[in-house]
Amino acid sequence: MEYIISDRVQTLKPSAIREIFKYAADPTVVSLSAGNPAPEAFPTKEIAEISNKILTEDPIAALQYSVTEGYTPLRNAVADRMKKKYNIGRDNDELIITSGAQQVMDLITKSTLNEGDTVICEAPSFIGSLNSFRSYNARLCGIPLESDGMNIEALEKALQTEKNVRFIYIIPNFQNPSGVTTSLEKRKKIYELAKKHSVLIIEDDPYGELRISGENVPQIKSFDEDGIVAYAGSFSKVLSPGMRLGYVIAPKAIVQKMVVCKQGEDVHTNIWAQMVAHRFMTEYDFEGHLNNLREIYRKKVNFCTELLDKYIVPNKISYQPIEGGLFIWCKLPEGVNMNDFCKQAVLRKVCVVPGNAFLTDENEQCSSFRINFSTPTDEQLEKGIKILGELAKEIL
Amino acid sequence: MEYIISDRVQTLKPSAIREIFKYAADPTVVSLSAGNPAPEAFPTKEIAEISNKILTEDPIAALQYSVTEGYTPLRNAVADRMKKKYNIGRDNDELIITSGAQQVMDLITKSTLNEGDTVICEAPSFIGSLNSFRSYNARLCGIPLESDGMNIEALEKALQTEKNVRFIYIIPNFQNPSGVTTSLEKRKKIYELAKKHSVLIIEDDPYGELRISGENVPQIKSFDEDGIVAYAGSFSKVLSPGMRLGYVIAPKAIVQKMVVCKQGEDVHTNIWAQMVAHRFMTEYDFEGHLNNLREIYRKKVNFCTELLDKYIVPNKISYQPIEGGLFIWCKLPEGVNMNDFCKQAVLRKVCVVPGNAFLTDENEQCSSFRINFSTPTDEQLEKGIKILGELAKEIL
Repeated sequence: MEYIISDRVQTLKPSAIREIFKYAADPTVVSLSAGNPAPEAFPTKEIAEISNKILTEDPIAALQYSVTEGYTPLRNAVADRMKKKYNIGRDNDELIITSGAQQVMDLITKSTLNEGDTVICEAPSFIGSLNSFRSYNARLCGIPLESDGMNIEALEKALQTEKNVRFIYIIPNFQNPSGVTTSLEKRKKIYELAKKHSVLIIEDDPYGELRISGENVPQIKSFDEDGIVAYAGSFSKVLSPGMRLGYVIAPKAIVQKMVVCKQGEDVHTNIWAQMVAHRFMTEYDFEGHLNNLREIYRKKVNFCTELLDKYIVPNKISYQPIEGGLFIWCKLPEGVNMNDFCKQAVLRKVCVVPGNAFLTDENEQCSSFRINFSTPTDEQLEKGIKILGELAKEIL
Repeated sequence: MEYIISDRVQTLKPSAIREIFKYAADPTVVSLSAGNPAPEAFPTKEIAEISNKILTEDPIAALQYSVTEGYTPLRNAVADRMKKKYNIGRDNDELIITSGAQQVMDLITKSTLNEGDTVICEAPSFIGSLNSFRSYNARLCGIPLESDGMNIEALEKALQTEKNVRFIYIIPNFQNPSGVTTSLEKRKKIYELAKKHSVLIIEDDPYGELRISGENVPQIKSFDEDGIVAYAGSFSKVLSPGMRLGYVIAPKAIVQKMVVCKQGEDVHTNIWAQMVAHRFMTEYDFEGHLNNLREIYRKKVNFCTELLDKYIVPNKISYQPIEGGLFIWCKLPEGVNMNDFCKQAVLRKVCVVPGNAFLTDENEQCSSFRINFSTPTDEQLEKGIKILGELAKEIL
């Protein structure tokens, strides 16, 4: 039988990063291509303790069907914390728990976008979200990213000329893949432009808690008095990605539609994990744990920066300063074939992610590649960056 | 700001069952409207034991990102069991783990159906799946369900006259809501018709293991030599629905597209839960556990049948014989307003689900309602069914 594939999915490809993972599975290869939290970042003892308590005290609640919106105590705990700490959330907003922040992208797109409508995003941007938009036949319009955020003129022009723009997708802190943090000034301008053009903003903030230097910049959602921002948060980088816990804080009218879509998608998110996250947030030292994480990544970044300055920079590769997040965005000199460089690196057993994987059009020219510093051990980092430096020295 | 809602979601309503749950939340109300496994059906001790082991022996694997297709040992264990026990799965098939069987419906629809294409389903059918199809703007075509399965003539006619039929959706065993099991003869006919018209079959089998009397009927997938059946299985009724674990066994070409869609939807299913399910299946007496479940539900059904025969049948309500599953489909005499009956029941503090909630067009006439016997206690069952009987005696 000839299988019929829907138009929306026909051209959808598995993430290029996944393809690279095939090489990375080779144990002799140093993978700098992942985006996993560091193994030492998991509060394994506390999770085991909490889980044990739950399965002793209230096992049926943890194993039975639950409600689509999420575990009420967890919803309240997250809403309280985000309001108190970041002034995020107004009376017309609602918070629901999702199966990772990835599901926020899926549900908002499903709820607000007709096939062929436009999504404005940073270029480059997170491939997982771009593929989620693509899977609903969204037209992607990429706005060049500068060291302080999107190019505002290009954004304004896109809002004026693109048809049926449904939302602007932005990762404001330590963007994946570029590491860029959007400045407060640009956040305000983006907000005003969205408001002027009656377009939603999706603010995707998985790395916001992982700032290791510099001052925190208020999230766009913190000044959303007009109900135009959907804020997506995640437990993946601060507790455990394997649990698949995320959340969205957005205007009720949107969230209600997302709930109906979620019901048809997975009914609800694993309730056991939601109960674990709730107890970890409320009965343990969550803020102290976040400090620990920042300390872990601060050390990794310091170590990594030394390596980059020693092996990479002298060989004509520059990198975006690292203030947080999990990634380093490295730029090759003009005129160098970046894809060729990445292939050569694989042959020498180092995996990085070619930058064009993060563009709205993968065939566009790109001279950057992405390195992850959270997953590899210090030994692997040193080995991998050294090899990249040697390669650069030979061919650049 | 006026929020724009996509066409596909515009008319989508929360499940009518959810609305009924609002009444059911009142502790003085007897709810016969749920679909939850019986609390005594959960192997809580074993799950706690396994989880503890995993979090002691291999915590990082349980908490870290994993692959979209699912935990390989679980995929293999399920595939092996389904092949050996039911002859399900051929060389051109692939099995992936999903976030509940609900996600199978979502992913197949997303992968194979363009907006406006047709899904053929049983009438009545499971509202969660119907809403999932609706959320992709599917046109639903309901085929009247008889006591041994779909009306074959109506199915054949629909396949001849409906445009762009993408799949036939069928719950072959102890159908939700009707309790009907499709006969082997009809399963074969449905298969031949699907083959003739080059249409996929989605065989949704969450209750297959819960047969309490009569002979097992081979699943349609067991005779799928042509690669036209996608079989959806679930851990919700045999282990825990709160974990959200399901799976699909379907032709590789379809599954590969589903994987790409799943990546953009939730990246992967909670890996901790997958590891627990795997160990429970392979290190514990899974088949013995299934026997226990059948014993629990057999007792419930025997008790319930006595109640129905005592209180309901003498008052002109008939019911579909119960061979398995979790539901009883009760039929009021011709000419009685079923919705009015259900409302009267709520006023007397008993919740049942009005049968039209399960139709492709909720405004169609329906004289049946659904009772669940797995969730309530014996006391609640007796109280609820007695009240229904009294109500029937008064108004019928």
